[in-house]
Amino acid sequence: MTAHPLRLPAGPVDLDDIPSDATPGFKGNKKKAKAALFAMGDEIADRQERLFAEGRTTGSHRRVLLVLQGMDTSGKGGVLKHTVGLVDPQGVRITSFKAPTDEEKKHDFLWRVRRAAPQPGYIGVFDRSHYEDVLIGRVDHLAEPEEIERRYDAINDFERELVEDGTVVLKCMLHISKDTQKERLIRRLDRPDKHWKYNPGDLNARSKWDAYREAYNVALERTHTDHAPWFVVPSDHKWFRNLAVGELLLAALRGMDLQWPPADFDVEAERARLLAEDASA
Amino acid sequence: MTAHPLRLPAGPVDLDDIPSDATPGFKGNKKKAKAALFAMGDEIADRQERLFAEGRTTGSHRRVLLVLQGMDTSGKGGVLKHTVGLVDPQGVRITSFKAPTDEEKKHDFLWRVRRAAPQPGYIGVFDRSHYEDVLIGRVDHLAEPEEIERRYDAINDFERELVEDGTVVLKCMLHISKDTQKERLIRRLDRPDKHWKYNPGDLNARSKWDAYREAYNVALERTHTDHAPWFVVPSDHKWFRNLAVGELLLAALRGMDLQWPPADFDVEAERARLLAEDASA
Repeated sequence: MTAHPLRLPAGPVDLDDIPSDATPGFKGNKKKAKAALFAMGDEIADRQERLFAEGRTTGSHRRVLLVLQGMDTSGKGGVLKHTVGLVDPQGVRITSFKAPTDEEKKHDFLWRVRRAAPQPGYIGVFDRSHYEDVLIGRVDHLAEPEEIERRYDAINDFERELVEDGTVVLKCMLHISKDTQKERLIRRLDRPDKHWKYNPGDLNARSKWDAYREAYNVALERTHTDHAPWFVVPSDHKWFRNLAVGELLLAALRGMDLQWPPADFDVEAERARLLAEDASA
Repeated sequence: MTAHPLRLPAGPVDLDDIPSDATPGFKGNKKKAKAALFAMGDEIADRQERLFAEGRTTGSHRRVLLVLQGMDTSGKGGVLKHTVGLVDPQGVRITSFKAPTDEEKKHDFLWRVRRAAPQPGYIGVFDRSHYEDVLIGRVDHLAEPEEIERRYDAINDFERELVEDGTVVLKCMLHISKDTQKERLIRRLDRPDKHWKYNPGDLNARSKWDAYREAYNVALERTHTDHAPWFVVPSDHKWFRNLAVGELLLAALRGMDLQWPPADFDVEAERARLLAEDASA
């Protein structure tokens, strides 16, 4: 498969025009998709380790930031488990953004986000993100309209800073239909081992589905930049969603052309030091 | 296999008396060990998810802290990749402790450690830990002897606080021989894709092997408590090490008797709300 069809075109966005049950670029079923994702594991692991090695040794600031956004049940947790779970956890830092704390509310909305940005060599993953501040922030009028307006530009500036400092920013909108959300919510109610994932408050957001869709449309359009593009991932099929994000991550790592860092010490001299122990022991 | 033989007995400790190439409780080879570890994955994942669910919904403070200590090349990274990598990354938080920063040095040695302790519902993993402050701290005289003395008790008090607040503390010393370390260091020099893991400074610590062994002996004895016991994991065989830590983690999760949290909402009322949408749509 190829991930390119997921990249949002420039211009006005209407998510209603993008099928959420499509599997662009992939001809196969659930079983094949799972196998394809699993098969990516080794290459992702190899490239991630090169990134980590580079961050540890060379002073390079290169890193990856994967932003996951989507309505409840769109599968941010599933992507974390199945796709991000392919990567050595040593090189991954996940931040789950909840409603801001009182401390966080005292600062600009990007304050907590800056602190959570990945360190050099890492793959940082945002489970929700600064985009909530122009999504629920807009839908529930948590800030004045002028402030919401300001935030789109602030986000673009912030992401440009990240990119200029060596971060590859990968933004995924996990796109589901309203019907799919309903099925998944009912499934959570049906299964006692899923009750913990159900929150009655989720229905409040669901009741504002159209307002959220509008907020997403605006946010996607305003923050879809060359330096930090958006990918809309059709997510009605969980197996396609997990595979597609894996493809995007792998493509990002490939694009970085990561090499094993050269030794910054004299390999032969070190070997001699180690072998000399025998003589002195 | 059973993990019990790894638990340190009470009393004076001499790591030289504990074989680092043993595979206590496991009769099998590398292939069988890898299969056994993989086979644990589902149960670890299930129990970890219950822990995460509990932390998200019930106000419970239960959590796990896995402390990994050991000399260079003992395999802390390998345990992170192969054992911790079995767990949904969403529920894991890894902290790698480096030499303290200037900011950290201004505070008590436990300051940065408290900040890194896992949140309720999480499995926290320390890649190195507060124990460095009584290991390199002692060997390199980074603090006065009275301060080092004070730290053993401070560590025990700190860990008791964690345990009383609902944390299961699991401390693993990855035990290798000096010869094994040499083989692994040479291997790092032999392979360009391992050069990044090699640090000439590691040989300085190696040259103080006996002093580190003494510091470990003292630290293990002084901080081996009923509430936070030490496990010495023979780690010359990487496959045994990874399996043994997996067994310890699984045993810890089993001991917590984790249940799916009951719904804190009216399941039928929520179902009715969702189904009523059709009527009003």
